[in-house]
Amino acid sequence: MFSSRLQKLHPYVPGEQPNDKVYLKLNANENPYPPCKEVKKRIEMFLSENFEKISRYPDPDANELKVAIAKMLNKTGGVLSSPEKLPFEITPDMIYCGNGSDEVLSFVFYAFFDSDKILPLPEFTYSFYPVYAEFYDIPTKIIPLNEDWSINADVVLKTAKQNDSAIIIANPNALTGLVFSRNEIENMLKNANPEKAFVVDEAYCDFACESSIGLLKKYKNLVVVRTFSKSLCGAGLRLGYAVANPEMISALKTVKDSLNHFPIDAISKEAGIATCENVNYYADCAKKIVNERDSFLTFLKDNDWFALPSKTNFVFTRKDGFLGEEIYSRIKKHAILVRHFSTKGIENFVRISIGTKEQMSELKKVMRDEFV
Amino acid sequence: MFSSRLQKLHPYVPGEQPNDKVYLKLNANENPYPPCKEVKKRIEMFLSENFEKISRYPDPDANELKVAIAKMLNKTGGVLSSPEKLPFEITPDMIYCGNGSDEVLSFVFYAFFDSDKILPLPEFTYSFYPVYAEFYDIPTKIIPLNEDWSINADVVLKTAKQNDSAIIIANPNALTGLVFSRNEIENMLKNANPEKAFVVDEAYCDFACESSIGLLKKYKNLVVVRTFSKSLCGAGLRLGYAVANPEMISALKTVKDSLNHFPIDAISKEAGIATCENVNYYADCAKKIVNERDSFLTFLKDNDWFALPSKTNFVFTRKDGFLGEEIYSRIKKHAILVRHFSTKGIENFVRISIGTKEQMSELKKVMRDEFV
Repeated sequence: MFSSRLQKLHPYVPGEQPNDKVYLKLNANENPYPPCKEVKKRIEMFLSENFEKISRYPDPDANELKVAIAKMLNKTGGVLSSPEKLPFEITPDMIYCGNGSDEVLSFVFYAFFDSDKILPLPEFTYSFYPVYAEFYDIPTKIIPLNEDWSINADVVLKTAKQNDSAIIIANPNALTGLVFSRNEIENMLKNANPEKAFVVDEAYCDFACESSIGLLKKYKNLVVVRTFSKSLCGAGLRLGYAVANPEMISALKTVKDSLNHFPIDAISKEAGIATCENVNYYADCAKKIVNERDSFLTFLKDNDWFALPSKTNFVFTRKDGFLGEEIYSRIKKHAILVRHFSTKGIENFVRISIGTKEQMSELKKVMRDEFV
Repeated sequence: MFSSRLQKLHPYVPGEQPNDKVYLKLNANENPYPPCKEVKKRIEMFLSENFEKISRYPDPDANELKVAIAKMLNKTGGVLSSPEKLPFEITPDMIYCGNGSDEVLSFVFYAFFDSDKILPLPEFTYSFYPVYAEFYDIPTKIIPLNEDWSINADVVLKTAKQNDSAIIIANPNALTGLVFSRNEIENMLKNANPEKAFVVDEAYCDFACESSIGLLKKYKNLVVVRTFSKSLCGAGLRLGYAVANPEMISALKTVKDSLNHFPIDAISKEAGIATCENVNYYADCAKKIVNERDSFLTFLKDNDWFALPSKTNFVFTRKDGFLGEEIYSRIKKHAILVRHFSTKGIENFVRISIGTKEQMSELKKVMRDEFV
């Protein structure tokens, strides 16, 4: 009954959402703070002034939202927790909006990665990448990480060169939390094939990293993918975007227009605009999360946990003498969810999302009691 | 820079949304009535009671919405304007929800249609079908319509048999507005390969047709695709769904989970639930549209237009002595948009969506004045 295509798939598994009791969810890298009040106000205004518009198709390109995103990026430079001025102005034609950055990433795979060219994928990165590759029949080669868990840029570059293929890098890396500096990304760009897309997935970039958005004018093949789901308290809105030169953006639009013209509904669009217009609120949340993360990293060190030096809103950690599965289960007993991956090589780690001060205190207490 | 895949695409073109002035939009088969007030109330309640949930990922399978859709179908039997009892109960595990029926349809193409089997596609049907086929590299054979513009069921069946391929039928047919009765669909099902998917796209079925949903228990290969964008006044919400047996539904879920886990955002989900729970309102709207359509068909006949006997919320029509392009332009001068397709064979037709009584009076006046 099913296509041969379908039978080859191994879907991605997201963080669990059990319903048996109320959990403190530190397993999906969500933002522990609510969206700002202006989001609510703008939706209410839309409902009172434009309710009948719900019967109509929305703007297929969400142009108003693109304008708002461009303004936000020009203000933050792509890093909420430590804003900087970009060397040029981002214009709305450099933005593509989709139904979450997962949809945008899947379009990136379709538009820029060929089925006859082996795509290098760092081991232990966002685990959706190999799923997209499988979905569109794109061959991949897994590139082992360095000993310090960083991405091996040289081998990624070499493999892409040898295979005349594009490159995708999660920066920060989605699973480890480690980063490349902008200089390191630029060095890769200089050595990469300028005729092939170079994609940087910056889902977590707002938490004290360096964004590559400022490199867009120099490198026409660069595509930066971002999301409203982490720093912008909008996982429930399903909004993600790509920033790139207009020619690259038009390729993503072609993919969209071959599948579903209107990925962004009328109400999420309004919520997204209000989000971008109130960036100071989200910058404050990001700073609180960064502080909490750094204090949690100190706690882990003080309590003999091994943790990678994360620049994101999560921490990847393990403790000698405990299996990852066991760490996950012991914490879950206390109604706190963290993420465990059974993948070989990281099976002893757990990934813990950073919550509020109170939430992290609760977790720390559990960790002190359970793992001695 | 682009994949070879991308370079082969010819995206679908939706009804225009010009901004130079305020138009009466009769070009995208939208519902002229607003959603019912309970939709607004439910969103407002969500904002006041669960606003912070926007920071969290939504339910990946929109289970509450599936429950609401199942209840709605059990009440209407799949036809709002003339409800009937189904011979069995639709359960939530028979529902798959996506970001508009366009997304659902694209997943259907991926999941059920093979790249080494020629798919028969009736000529002049929903023009997104050949785009999906191209997107996933599915070969197609165009099956000419009968002289009366109906779909040639025999040749579709024969072609599918010869090629061991699946079948997709828009019923009512998206471009012509013509229908198969349930008996005719069942006859096709009886003669089709039971090991291959048989997809019925019922986007317009709520306007006085017969739904195939009641055949689902007898035919395990049947997949019925439906939308909130037409009869349910929800084009702006981006909600569509498939109804099928659980095994077929699980295939669509596999596609989703390989691309984007959360296609339905937290707020649209609430709006969708309120929609399903207030089906009487939408049934009244559908009845008004059906009446207006039938009266418009009479008007067209009385004024020497040729129109196909539509069972949808649109009419496909032409007038001797006028090119389709000209009909479209002359009506547009009066700030009314209708849809013209330049495709050979239908280039002299326009497709006109049915509006409210007042809107149709305005259009009729223009048609009386312009085309004499």
